[in-house]
Amino acid sequence: MVAITNMQKLGAAATLTLLTCSQGLLMEASKEGGHYPYNVATVPLMSELMKFFLSAILLYKAHNRDPKGTQMTTDWKSVLLFPIPSVIYLFHNNVQFYTMAYVDAATYQILGNLKIVTTGALFYIALKRHLSRIQWLALVLLMAGATTSQISSNGGGTLQAPIQGYMLGIVSACLSATAGVYTEFLMKKNNDNLYFQNLQLYGFGTIFNAIRLTVDDYNSSYENGFWLSTGLRGWNTITWLIAINFAFSGLFVSWIMKFADTIVKVYATSSAMLLTALLSVWFFDLEPTLQLFLGILIACISINLYFMPNDSPPPPPAPVVTKDEEEVDRAR
Amino acid sequence: MVAITNMQKLGAAATLTLLTCSQGLLMEASKEGGHYPYNVATVPLMSELMKFFLSAILLYKAHNRDPKGTQMTTDWKSVLLFPIPSVIYLFHNNVQFYTMAYVDAATYQILGNLKIVTTGALFYIALKRHLSRIQWLALVLLMAGATTSQISSNGGGTLQAPIQGYMLGIVSACLSATAGVYTEFLMKKNNDNLYFQNLQLYGFGTIFNAIRLTVDDYNSSYENGFWLSTGLRGWNTITWLIAINFAFSGLFVSWIMKFADTIVKVYATSSAMLLTALLSVWFFDLEPTLQLFLGILIACISINLYFMPNDSPPPPPAPVVTKDEEEVDRAR
Repeated sequence: MVAITNMQKLGAAATLTLLTCSQGLLMEASKEGGHYPYNVATVPLMSELMKFFLSAILLYKAHNRDPKGTQMTTDWKSVLLFPIPSVIYLFHNNVQFYTMAYVDAATYQILGNLKIVTTGALFYIALKRHLSRIQWLALVLLMAGATTSQISSNGGGTLQAPIQGYMLGIVSACLSATAGVYTEFLMKKNNDNLYFQNLQLYGFGTIFNAIRLTVDDYNSSYENGFWLSTGLRGWNTITWLIAINFAFSGLFVSWIMKFADTIVKVYATSSAMLLTALLSVWFFDLEPTLQLFLGILIACISINLYFMPNDSPPPPPAPVVTKDEEEVDRAR
Repeated sequence: MVAITNMQKLGAAATLTLLTCSQGLLMEASKEGGHYPYNVATVPLMSELMKFFLSAILLYKAHNRDPKGTQMTTDWKSVLLFPIPSVIYLFHNNVQFYTMAYVDAATYQILGNLKIVTTGALFYIALKRHLSRIQWLALVLLMAGATTSQISSNGGGTLQAPIQGYMLGIVSACLSATAGVYTEFLMKKNNDNLYFQNLQLYGFGTIFNAIRLTVDDYNSSYENGFWLSTGLRGWNTITWLIAINFAFSGLFVSWIMKFADTIVKVYATSSAMLLTALLSVWFFDLEPTLQLFLGILIACISINLYFMPNDSPPPPPAPVVTKDEEEVDRAR
């Protein structure tokens, strides 16, 4: 396993931040007359397909170059672990749907920040990964900063949703954390080649997305035809850019899960939200709010604290004395 | 000089927080029909007098107990440093007055938080005191947290004051920092007895407050009579409690400046603001806002970071080898 430093993690987070941020801006730019001219659900399917074929090509090349070094576990017990993230996201989407029935959009967005802390907790509990006290405080800060930036200026800011809304928000945050932490477990559980793991992940992802489109079409009584024939209707250049962006973001997330960790992804997602809000002020000529600047300031401090070089590293392991060394010692 | 730990500093800050917080609530409770039934400017004079006499008694006792250990520098060059804080506060009050001409009350309150960071900067520059990177981040966080709690829920949150307002806000923050850091310098510059230093501080304080009342009376053409004869008009039990509270807070601040530092006072003041806001929600049955909770959460993290036991203490001084030890060494 490649060891990576805090600075490299930070670089990975920054790249994912830029990809995610341009996603948001591209989505906004692809609208025509205020709504999307294409079926939004076909974009993830297309990007899953792109990732699947890209991973297949990369795996083929890696295997040709170094057949023995390209580890692949084809045991069914291992393969069947890969559809589970898709299943968790399915649950998650349903819980989100029910949550929206109890809380308004602004509160819903704010509740979403809970996933920062639930991910940290599950990262610690399920993956048994160490977080220093400063890193815990940094995670709580990131949540506080993200929330601060989202306080609405017009009359919002009081907590008035029914208790069910908050409970479902917490359930949603736990499911989101489970998906993230489980994916990290999946990518790191053995030294299988990253592209082989991707192949399984995106193969199942493609299947789940295809099922979803079919169910949607069935539920709408084929009002817009069947997705296989009408799926690309209304796609423009920007839509293709979005699909490509989604594909590269996804591949980058896989890389982060295997070589860095879930928390790096959490930082990237939150930073992207703040950067998108800041760029929106610029692009769409909005009035910048004090809470946005405060949120960004607090998030920057959180990043600084979380990725700070550790002052007190764990004690080095006791030196392993080999037989040869013992003999040298005796000879002295 | 007594060495004091971070935990003791925290205890001192907590006590000053409670005193300052009850001040705010007592001030509110002393109102009759929405305004103060007494001349507000007479309260600081009374509390300066109380502190002066209390310090005189304590100094007399300390001197009787241990005449040699009670150090007092009666040189005029030293004594004349003590009216300077009063002069700085005089400037500060005037700048505050002009600032209010450019910014509204909410922005004014928010600009006041700048003093947290200016105090840190002056503490570092003028007093040459070390602050770790985490402590710097903690100070910026405290400012961000205090500001977050003050974002107004109804339409506030945009930055729209004229530039003069912000400039004066910065000048005000620098003057406030200067007063704090200068007082710390004054209390720590020698090992003079604390009560003797207080005697000088509050002696000049009494004189400045008396001059202020006289000037006020002159400017209002003695509309309400002369303060020496009408000063206690309208005072009730709560007014006396406020004066006593002011006096004890002041004595406590002197103690903090001598044995802890200005930053401890900054934490106490900001925490008191947040605690007062929280208790006001309780006492005056207001709707609690999300920004208040976020502000309190961020301030708590800041306190945690600032007063965190230092992981990497400065290297211990090289052991001083005395002659005796050298002889012992040689004998070995």
